[in-house]
Amino acid sequence: MNLWSGRFSGTLNPLAAQLNASLPFDQRLAAEDILGSQVWARAIHQAGLLDDEELASILGGLDEIRQEFENQQFSFRESDEDIHTAVERRLGELIGPASGKLHTGRSRNDQVATDFRLWIIHAADRLQNHMLDFQKVLLDRAERDFGTVIPGYTHFQQAQPLLLSHWWLSHFWPIQRDRDRLAQLAGRTAVLPLGCGALAGTAFPIDRQALADDLGFASPAPNSLDAVSDRDFAAEFLFWAALTGVHISRLAEALILYSTAEFGFITFSDAYSTGSSLMPQKKNPDLMELARGKSGTLIGRLAGLLATLKALPSAYDKDLQEDKLPVFEAADTLELLFPVVGGAIATLSTHPDRSRSAIQTPVLATDLADYLVKKGIPFREAHGCVGRAIRRAEELGVPLASLPGLEWQAIHPAFEEDLAETFDVDQSLARRAAWGGTAPQAVRAQINLAKQMVLDSG
Amino acid sequence: MNLWSGRFSGTLNPLAAQLNASLPFDQRLAAEDILGSQVWARAIHQAGLLDDEELASILGGLDEIRQEFENQQFSFRESDEDIHTAVERRLGELIGPASGKLHTGRSRNDQVATDFRLWIIHAADRLQNHMLDFQKVLLDRAERDFGTVIPGYTHFQQAQPLLLSHWWLSHFWPIQRDRDRLAQLAGRTAVLPLGCGALAGTAFPIDRQALADDLGFASPAPNSLDAVSDRDFAAEFLFWAALTGVHISRLAEALILYSTAEFGFITFSDAYSTGSSLMPQKKNPDLMELARGKSGTLIGRLAGLLATLKALPSAYDKDLQEDKLPVFEAADTLELLFPVVGGAIATLSTHPDRSRSAIQTPVLATDLADYLVKKGIPFREAHGCVGRAIRRAEELGVPLASLPGLEWQAIHPAFEEDLAETFDVDQSLARRAAWGGTAPQAVRAQINLAKQMVLDSG
Amino acid sequence: MNLWSGRFSGTLNPLAAQLNASLPFDQRLAAEDILGSQVWARAIHQAGLLDDEELASILGGLDEIRQEFENQQFSFRESDEDIHTAVERRLGELIGPASGKLHTGRSRNDQVATDFRLWIIHAADRLQNHMLDFQKVLLDRAERDFGTVIPGYTHFQQAQPLLLSHWWLSHFWPIQRDRDRLAQLAGRTAVLPLGCGALAGTAFPIDRQALADDLGFASPAPNSLDAVSDRDFAAEFLFWAALTGVHISRLAEALILYSTAEFGFITFSDAYSTGSSLMPQKKNPDLMELARGKSGTLIGRLAGLLATLKALPSAYDKDLQEDKLPVFEAADTLELLFPVVGGAIATLSTHPDRSRSAIQTPVLATDLADYLVKKGIPFREAHGCVGRAIRRAEELGVPLASLPGLEWQAIHPAFEEDLAETFDVDQSLARRAAWGGTAPQAVRAQINLAKQMVLDSG
Amino acid sequence: MNLWSGRFSGTLNPLAAQLNASLPFDQRLAAEDILGSQVWARAIHQAGLLDDEELASILGGLDEIRQEFENQQFSFRESDEDIHTAVERRLGELIGPASGKLHTGRSRNDQVATDFRLWIIHAADRLQNHMLDFQKVLLDRAERDFGTVIPGYTHFQQAQPLLLSHWWLSHFWPIQRDRDRLAQLAGRTAVLPLGCGALAGTAFPIDRQALADDLGFASPAPNSLDAVSDRDFAAEFLFWAALTGVHISRLAEALILYSTAEFGFITFSDAYSTGSSLMPQKKNPDLMELARGKSGTLIGRLAGLLATLKALPSAYDKDLQEDKLPVFEAADTLELLFPVVGGAIATLSTHPDRSRSAIQTPVLATDLADYLVKKGIPFREAHGCVGRAIRRAEELGVPLASLPGLEWQAIHPAFEEDLAETFDVDQSLARRAAWGGTAPQAVRAQINLAKQMVLDSG
Repeated sequence: MNLWSGRFSGTLNPLAAQLNASLPFDQRLAAEDILGSQVWARAIHQAGLLDDEELASILGGLDEIRQEFENQQFSFRESDEDIHTAVERRLGELIGPASGKLHTGRSRNDQVATDFRLWIIHAADRLQNHMLDFQKVLLDRAERDFGTVIPGYTHFQQAQPLLLSHWWLSHFWPIQRDRDRLAQLAGRTAVLPLGCGALAGTAFPIDRQALADDLGFASPAPNSLDAVSDRDFAAEFLFWAALTGVHISRLAEALILYSTAEFGFITFSDAYSTGSSLMPQKKNPDLMELARGKSGTLIGRLAGLLATLKALPSAYDKDLQEDKLPVFEAADTLELLFPVVGGAIATLSTHPDRSRSAIQTPVLATDLADYLVKKGIPFREAHGCVGRAIRRAEELGVPLASLPGLEWQAIHPAFEEDLAETFDVDQSLARRAAWGGTAPQAVRAQINLAKQMVLDSG
Repeated sequence: MNLWSGRFSGTLNPLAAQLNASLPFDQRLAAEDILGSQVWARAIHQAGLLDDEELASILGGLDEIRQEFENQQFSFRESDEDIHTAVERRLGELIGPASGKLHTGRSRNDQVATDFRLWIIHAADRLQNHMLDFQKVLLDRAERDFGTVIPGYTHFQQAQPLLLSHWWLSHFWPIQRDRDRLAQLAGRTAVLPLGCGALAGTAFPIDRQALADDLGFASPAPNSLDAVSDRDFAAEFLFWAALTGVHISRLAEALILYSTAEFGFITFSDAYSTGSSLMPQKKNPDLMELARGKSGTLIGRLAGLLATLKALPSAYDKDLQEDKLPVFEAADTLELLFPVVGGAIATLSTHPDRSRSAIQTPVLATDLADYLVKKGIPFREAHGCVGRAIRRAEELGVPLASLPGLEWQAIHPAFEEDLAETFDVDQSLARRAAWGGTAPQAVRAQINLAKQMVLDSG
Repeated sequence: MNLWSGRFSGTLNPLAAQLNASLPFDQRLAAEDILGSQVWARAIHQAGLLDDEELASILGGLDEIRQEFENQQFSFRESDEDIHTAVERRLGELIGPASGKLHTGRSRNDQVATDFRLWIIHAADRLQNHMLDFQKVLLDRAERDFGTVIPGYTHFQQAQPLLLSHWWLSHFWPIQRDRDRLAQLAGRTAVLPLGCGALAGTAFPIDRQALADDLGFASPAPNSLDAVSDRDFAAEFLFWAALTGVHISRLAEALILYSTAEFGFITFSDAYSTGSSLMPQKKNPDLMELARGKSGTLIGRLAGLLATLKALPSAYDKDLQEDKLPVFEAADTLELLFPVVGGAIATLSTHPDRSRSAIQTPVLATDLADYLVKKGIPFREAHGCVGRAIRRAEELGVPLASLPGLEWQAIHPAFEEDLAETFDVDQSLARRAAWGGTAPQAVRAQINLAKQMVLDSG
Repeated sequence: MNLWSGRFSGTLNPLAAQLNASLPFDQRLAAEDILGSQVWARAIHQAGLLDDEELASILGGLDEIRQEFENQQFSFRESDEDIHTAVERRLGELIGPASGKLHTGRSRNDQVATDFRLWIIHAADRLQNHMLDFQKVLLDRAERDFGTVIPGYTHFQQAQPLLLSHWWLSHFWPIQRDRDRLAQLAGRTAVLPLGCGALAGTAFPIDRQALADDLGFASPAPNSLDAVSDRDFAAEFLFWAALTGVHISRLAEALILYSTAEFGFITFSDAYSTGSSLMPQKKNPDLMELARGKSGTLIGRLAGLLATLKALPSAYDKDLQEDKLPVFEAADTLELLFPVVGGAIATLSTHPDRSRSAIQTPVLATDLADYLVKKGIPFREAHGCVGRAIRRAEELGVPLASLPGLEWQAIHPAFEEDLAETFDVDQSLARRAAWGGTAPQAVRAQINLAKQMVLDSG
């Protein structure tokens, strides 16, 4: 069955029908399609286009169809070209000709845009919960691992010591921004296309604000032409997914490195590791790698949809059918990645002795420069002095901390006996006590703020 | 000059220096860098690291450098590897060794992130104004062209008649969403990295909230590690630019088609047309094509930055230097496209007779189906009847409006004499009077809402 | 079942297992996996690792599994994490412990790379045939439509008249390049990873050249580490698909425009058109739009895989599992698009009167300039003269061909009586007789070359 | 000056002119434009459109202009909208009205396509040399570092030992494929658009094969419409650049990791390292990071051009002007990356003791399984036994090599005294002697093949 063949004398070529069919993927919109149709039935009843009996019959029939979907008893027919057709066809089977009134004043253009927006709003709710759970895992690690020290890196070279808790939290805040973005885009998605017809608006006296209220949307779309062809919300969702994927990828990449034999800061649990078909010893971070790899795919999905949208003239074109698969795929990917990556993080072991002992003395070089600054030496000069000390220690083949006092003096007389205190990792940490720094007290304050963020949403 | 050579014995290979140099593009951050440095100077003075005299000297020196930039008198040296180095080098020339204290407790990592955020916030302000102006052009056309009728399209086939004003407004609302997105991302950008040092926070007692207030940021970043490596704001800006570009591209594409000999609905003014070196008759919409083409480039810029970000482990890596050129290019592109496309729209001529006469009768088919609906025929049946009428007219080789009454009756007895009234474009328009539709009164209401949107921001 | 759990004490988390599982998509490699395993069995038999009986048993078992797949009787188990595991598990069920010898000296890393390359080589063969068929459709149209004239466009403004045959052929040559690219990449794909083990090579005396010969590959990969992590062939395939998609998109876009009411040069057959659920009159080029839209998706797939690959250090990482879905999807898309777009083109009607009469006189302006050139006027001057004539005709409100002789003379005395002959579309066509031009004789020659290209591959 | 204003009464809006201007970037085509014009002059002289004197004058004038460019003495005027206009304007200044004949029968459409193809062909030559030099660096390292052993990784977990030479060569072969791809695309680029006019062919009797020969192209394009709008060569070049960038990125990523304190396998020379403005000790692999980061940008450039191309109907549209900047940028990037990354590799120090001692015993697990295989145990069973041995050693807290004999026997009786020999890294290497493996003799053979590849191109 299709909804449009009146004027056609030939039938669609079978391969063309296969290309045209969206049912394989848009059947995921079933619940939203039924909900939208029930709301629409009430609206056209209000407008006098259905009598009470017809309304009851349609609503009841749609309820029955919803049940069939929920019980996985709904049977598609080969001739159903999309979910809208399938539902309308089944409604006809259940309630007879009255079903033919449901599409009055409505087009599949406004219908599918409504269904799809609803689906994204629902997915955003689920994803907010996943992100919240994920943030709780990070927060929990920040608390459990308090006191563990790791080398901090820039350019993946050791830079300054860090509290591991601070590092975990550095991955908490990107997710906080992701949550913020998702909430904002969900808000923008809640603008209702229904009642816009194919492009020009509906010819019946529909109260579209009531329709929006009934469906939980913030407001009806103000321009019918824009409403049926706008896919900003899908592009925004894919961008959100791509950027969220980038955050997961960066975290996964770091964890992969920390779990190498060479770094050895963490070990993943068996529940989140896999092995090799050839090499019996292997315990691989495959799941982190899949998380990392899938973020590339998410970037491509965004670029693909934008390329498709960019090529359209205004108004609805069938190219827009390419919008759904990437959105479904992106939501599925992230609904899987958050619990898996979260589970892997929650269950990994840390090796505090290993990570502390990995810290090499030169990471305290900034502290040495700051030592001079506190004695009134301009920082730029202090930086140069410490650089020369490091070079000198390398020339002499001794660790920086063992560079003789005379050598220090030769570089700058302000290097005095109290210099030794500078070579202390805990002191170095404690010095970075300004808001946002890695000093234990600052990290405690940061944890409190992060908790507040989670509680506010919980 | 570079800021880091103390520990090095060799010098940088010249090609490596060329690859490493960011000055060719980051010099655009000069104003922001100076502003950020002045704020930082006040903060370390507050923290007791500068005395009053040193502060005054630094602030004065920086003011002088700003003047030099504003008067295009600043001289770069080949050894300046980036804008931060250039400014600090020049400050040393102007005020001597006190300049060496400015970098105390600060890293280029937090410095450049601050500069770049400031730059984007400033660019967002300019772009908001451009968009507002562009919306005014569309609004103005909607008012000037009120009454002009065009065929509306879906699948670029004639679908239903539209008011041209409605069509112009369908391009107003995407820009409204773009403005909304830009405002939200600018808000998220106003989180201050300064005071986060290289990665671990600053070792001096800096009041970062005061710093944020002084620089007009909403709050200091809560995690130093995240603060120096977060480029979400740049990715968001590029996504905003890409999606805005898509909107411009879709509009440009439609205008290009409307200006063809075959459509003939509009003519661009000479001020926004170009010719051909070979074909003397040509008057080409090159500018619309460039607008359309550049939106592809913007999509690529977004995909490129995401691919770069995705590959990084957490913390600052030099790969992040790839963030600036695409952002600058995207801002430049849109700061040029808005006034040019806006100018082209403001000055084009419409051909109302041509666009009205282009409307073919079958676009009223939905009205014919609605005619039956109003007589109680279920829409689905009505749709089929009209489809058959169209097929019959094609078989007989007559326009639909000239199909004899007997033929209509043969299709459905509810087709009666009053059918003739349905064949009227103005009535068709008037019927679509629900909110968001193309009926004149609905479009008037839409114009009022659009005006309010513009006034609220003006 | 998995192939690696010996050293593990815990079991994989169920969601992690779901993320890790590649079976849902890599089962498409079944035929290639079985073929590769048979070849491998012969190679390790040759190396003395299997006796004759074991070899026969393994080959027979694999044949039986192949049958099961061909008859769709193969049963997967939930524990099969990928196609390799499923086949090896089933082989064990069929032939017992001897199956455990098949994986000797082999890793899933070299195995999957081999399977995937084989799959692409097979897909390339099918796609070459699709392209050849598609080129034949274009060639056939070029012959059937010989004599039909259309306006040629640049910037979608009428530029110069064209033979429709010439236009069809302008879409033949891009496909010829696509075929060339596909053949070259298939050649590069035929380099064999098998025998490279997990990364370091196999520890058994395998004759890898014989292995390559047996499997129809050109040569064994020269470096084991590169061999297991190289996915250039997948990226090349996706680029080929994306660029081929661009060609189809550009063709589809043009056909969509030519089928509008306003252009009216072509009408799609009912077998390749669809309708509207709301607007009974609509006959939409949905299939062309899907072709156009899917090319955006293909671009995204390419960008996505490149982003994933770009982020990897050398050697095999699990991120590479993201390589298969996009390749399968791209091949499926194009295996469907070619016959559908080809069918639409083969069955569309042209409207030669309409397209000829659409040509507006100014498209002959270049001919007018050339007229002056032939009288010795420098082209640049001639171009200006014709431009002024067009402007003058517009001022007088007359068609260019009706501009009075005195006006022409006033512009340039070389405009003489014989000018009238220039205003002839067929003469204009005939003048462009240099190789590659639109003159009938040149197009005939072009058709002959195109035929040769098709014959050479047929 | 522009080449097309005859028919225009208004002048171009200044911002529109700025958007339209391509001179800021297409001036890089100056040499190619002049060369193409000289060849064209000879062709139209041959066709009788220039007399001998005019030809000599034009050729001489163009030579003079070339000199001006080479000496950087050419003065652009603000009114020059592109390089073609600038050259033709200057020619007029130098030789007077005869210059006006040069554009006879030619359009900027075929002209710029010719110039751009020439530019890419020239760039491809330069890039082939860069790649060859880069391969020589890798080959040289493979020879110099022969004997150095490193842990080989999959999933960045230690997998099996490798010769460092083998690892260097694993980066040689991708470049070999890049060279192959570049040569093939350069061949496809050498198809000549010149003589195709604006879209329909030239109206003068030009011998286009002679033209192709004169300019060093393989053949004239067979279809004028395709010839002026085909940008496959630009897309191919960008894909080549993106994939080549991926190869450099993967290599850079690995080197960055190998240069960390934790891995410690290599140290970059000072000539290819940079420092930190804040942390005096830092020696950062910025250049490798820039190489890695720029590969993201290259991916974006490809996606961007494809998105632009995808949106075009057939024939020339101004959107194509977006083709040049990304190609120039990609070529510049790679012309810089190859020598810099090559220089960094040539000058880095290796730490053979460190990398050998980093190898952990379990990487020999595959050898242990192979040990059992050689005693007739099916591999799958052997794999399980070794896995259990590893688990047992972990439980007992002893290194695998120190697991008592009784424990081995308990796992499988085939583990006998000679097992000890398996725990030898050099033996493990030597076993992988099949073609493509890491055994010294296999690597020697591989080096010889690689040398042959380089010699064949040298």
